[in-house]
Amino acid sequence: MRMIDLIQKKRDGAVLTKEEIDFFIGGYAAGEIPDYQVSALLMAIYFQDMTDDEITNLTMAMAYSGDVVDLSSIEGIKVDKHSTGGVGDATTLVLAPLVASVGVPVAKMSGRGLGHTGGTIDKFESIPNFQVEMSDEKFIQSVNEIGVAVIGQSGELAPADKLLYALRDVTGTVDSIPLIASSIMSKKIAAGADAIVLDVTVGDGAFMKSIDDAKRLAETMVRIGKRSNRHTKAIISDMSEPLGNAIGNGLEMVEAIDALNNRGPEDLMEVVYTLGSQMVVLAGVSATLEEARTLLHEALVDGRALEKFKELVENQHGDISYIDSPEKFMTAKYEIEFLSKETGIIAELVADNLGKAAMMLGAGRKTKDDKIDFAVGLKLNKKVGESVSTGDSIMTIYSNQSDVSDIEDLLYQSIQIGKDGVEPILIHAVIE
Amino acid sequence: MRMIDLIQKKRDGAVLTKEEIDFFIGGYAAGEIPDYQVSALLMAIYFQDMTDDEITNLTMAMAYSGDVVDLSSIEGIKVDKHSTGGVGDATTLVLAPLVASVGVPVAKMSGRGLGHTGGTIDKFESIPNFQVEMSDEKFIQSVNEIGVAVIGQSGELAPADKLLYALRDVTGTVDSIPLIASSIMSKKIAAGADAIVLDVTVGDGAFMKSIDDAKRLAETMVRIGKRSNRHTKAIISDMSEPLGNAIGNGLEMVEAIDALNNRGPEDLMEVVYTLGSQMVVLAGVSATLEEARTLLHEALVDGRALEKFKELVENQHGDISYIDSPEKFMTAKYEIEFLSKETGIIAELVADNLGKAAMMLGAGRKTKDDKIDFAVGLKLNKKVGESVSTGDSIMTIYSNQSDVSDIEDLLYQSIQIGKDGVEPILIHAVIE
Repeated sequence: MRMIDLIQKKRDGAVLTKEEIDFFIGGYAAGEIPDYQVSALLMAIYFQDMTDDEITNLTMAMAYSGDVVDLSSIEGIKVDKHSTGGVGDATTLVLAPLVASVGVPVAKMSGRGLGHTGGTIDKFESIPNFQVEMSDEKFIQSVNEIGVAVIGQSGELAPADKLLYALRDVTGTVDSIPLIASSIMSKKIAAGADAIVLDVTVGDGAFMKSIDDAKRLAETMVRIGKRSNRHTKAIISDMSEPLGNAIGNGLEMVEAIDALNNRGPEDLMEVVYTLGSQMVVLAGVSATLEEARTLLHEALVDGRALEKFKELVENQHGDISYIDSPEKFMTAKYEIEFLSKETGIIAELVADNLGKAAMMLGAGRKTKDDKIDFAVGLKLNKKVGESVSTGDSIMTIYSNQSDVSDIEDLLYQSIQIGKDGVEPILIHAVIE
Repeated sequence: MRMIDLIQKKRDGAVLTKEEIDFFIGGYAAGEIPDYQVSALLMAIYFQDMTDDEITNLTMAMAYSGDVVDLSSIEGIKVDKHSTGGVGDATTLVLAPLVASVGVPVAKMSGRGLGHTGGTIDKFESIPNFQVEMSDEKFIQSVNEIGVAVIGQSGELAPADKLLYALRDVTGTVDSIPLIASSIMSKKIAAGADAIVLDVTVGDGAFMKSIDDAKRLAETMVRIGKRSNRHTKAIISDMSEPLGNAIGNGLEMVEAIDALNNRGPEDLMEVVYTLGSQMVVLAGVSATLEEARTLLHEALVDGRALEKFKELVENQHGDISYIDSPEKFMTAKYEIEFLSKETGIIAELVADNLGKAAMMLGAGRKTKDDKIDFAVGLKLNKKVGESVSTGDSIMTIYSNQSDVSDIEDLLYQSIQIGKDGVEPILIHAVIE
């Protein structure tokens, strides 16, 4: 088999066989196929797309290119949740303890943030001493004992995907549905998931800019899930404005604690309930989505979810006094109100720009090696559709630098205030 | 400027600027842009095509990526001829002395053969002691003194094209009209041409398999020629069967000498006259194609062309006794008649297979380092459209090995004999 023949075959619109995809991924992971042939194939895939068979074979080849986590010694159906990324998205912080508190085992591997999107692992690390590294044995033992553990992604999972992703990033082949779908699904399968719930975000702050593209991606992943025997559901959620009110690691943790105290922002809670009820049904804990939603609501109201969260933090050596006294997270030197210059109704809060503003404050990384400031970020006092008058605070800037004029300039460019009422749509579709 | 932005721009169908193309070619030639980004861009070009402006800019960037031959000290308009390659194509051997004999200066740089297509330089080397290497000074002096010189292509011409071609060869991006056109035109411009005549071959034995593709390529190069101030004309000539009767270096040289004695095969002569008259007009020697054709015919009939050929060979230290006694080239140990198994009319002689058969005999190179046997090859006794009876010799195999059964097997697969008359078309179009 020769790589050049695979490139020409895909270039001409033909379908690659399982053997050909295994040859390509195996050869690339082994360093036997050069980058320049792989990037040519990736660009050909960008233009010619892939069939479900091809995407499934690519997913499995990447999933099995390294270690595959064996969660079989955890009882129950392990349902993993994945978001394609957003701004101010604290969903996992709430969801992990919440579904665990109703009996869904949560063995969660999460990533760090880069650019304008945050990462769950960074958010957990805003709790002093919280440990995100754990041996496989301890990880499994934790889930068996308390029902939940959240750790950083191991470098050994789906190494072929890691190589491919790095190459896509510099060759203009990131925005390809089959490549995105196989990348996400391969990591979930390598992480040991029995079933998968996907939050495909759409809008300025997300990877997918149009609802059509988001639907295509979600439908593709749901089909790949079926073909690889991992039941998969997806929701299309809006990320044109940030989710919830907080952007920044400590601030989002405070918001998550509020949510676990049943005082979460409405939009965040709706995403949490929508994803959570899918997870509960896939895990076989409830028979219907309605039943699952009721179960989750009860666990939140009666404090079981918050209790589970404390168990999780304690098990991973985090300082639980912060959970009882969330004001401890609020250590930014400056709290600067960002005031409206107009009167009207907020029409737009461009999510990626707000994420970028938070990054400029120190809440995110420009490059992989940047350090994160857990204290800083933004807190929205107004969201899209709300009325605002000149001089009202639209948001509070939490900063450790006194001069935030650059950031204010960016924020003013990122806000549209109009005269007409706006009804933002949060959940665009559920794909099953 | 960043290469990733250029890749994405082209991928999305936008037009690259001159500055962007200069950045890409300059950076690649300098080793600053990695192969994997270039191959991604090449595949994007394969799918998105290029405008004439882009192809012209790419051509000029590659032409000027190394030395550009300065032929300004040769008087007159220097017209270069280029063929996209064929089987048994001895055109240049005849054309160079012929047009030189009527006053068109011929400063010709030619290539070697690879695979099933032959190379002019190899064919000239079938003359004992013929020197294909020459200093720039001697090259120019030769053209000024005797009007013609034929040398091997220098490694320093269009080095960016050389790099790009090697990468295209292993990344499935060879068959792209803008990339083929810019590659050919950059080499001609680097070789110092004032005007260019192109023979775009089409058919099984050629690079272009369809007349439509050949026309697109020819039209593209003619337009690029205009934009770069090198008047360019092209013909589309057929290469579904070999041109002339001989395939193999010494055999083609014998055929060329026959042609210079006005005894050449009809199809070869038609291509020679068609290309030659274009060259004569472009050089400003004749006003019309008809006038030019008459001029060339006279030079052939009265022996001036043959005399010019001898001057050329003598100037490059070749043994001219071979020109007077072409039977000296016929040194193959075995002459094996290849007999027809059927009676009918020859419908097909698949050119690339016949080229491959000649290569198997030793007339061509499988890889760049192979040595060539000048004595071996094929000589067609019948061509497409001619009648043949069982037992007639379709061709003679000139071999230095007694067992040619493999080659005969390939030849039998490459010949179709039918019942209906066939009228092969030789010149499909002239593009100006």
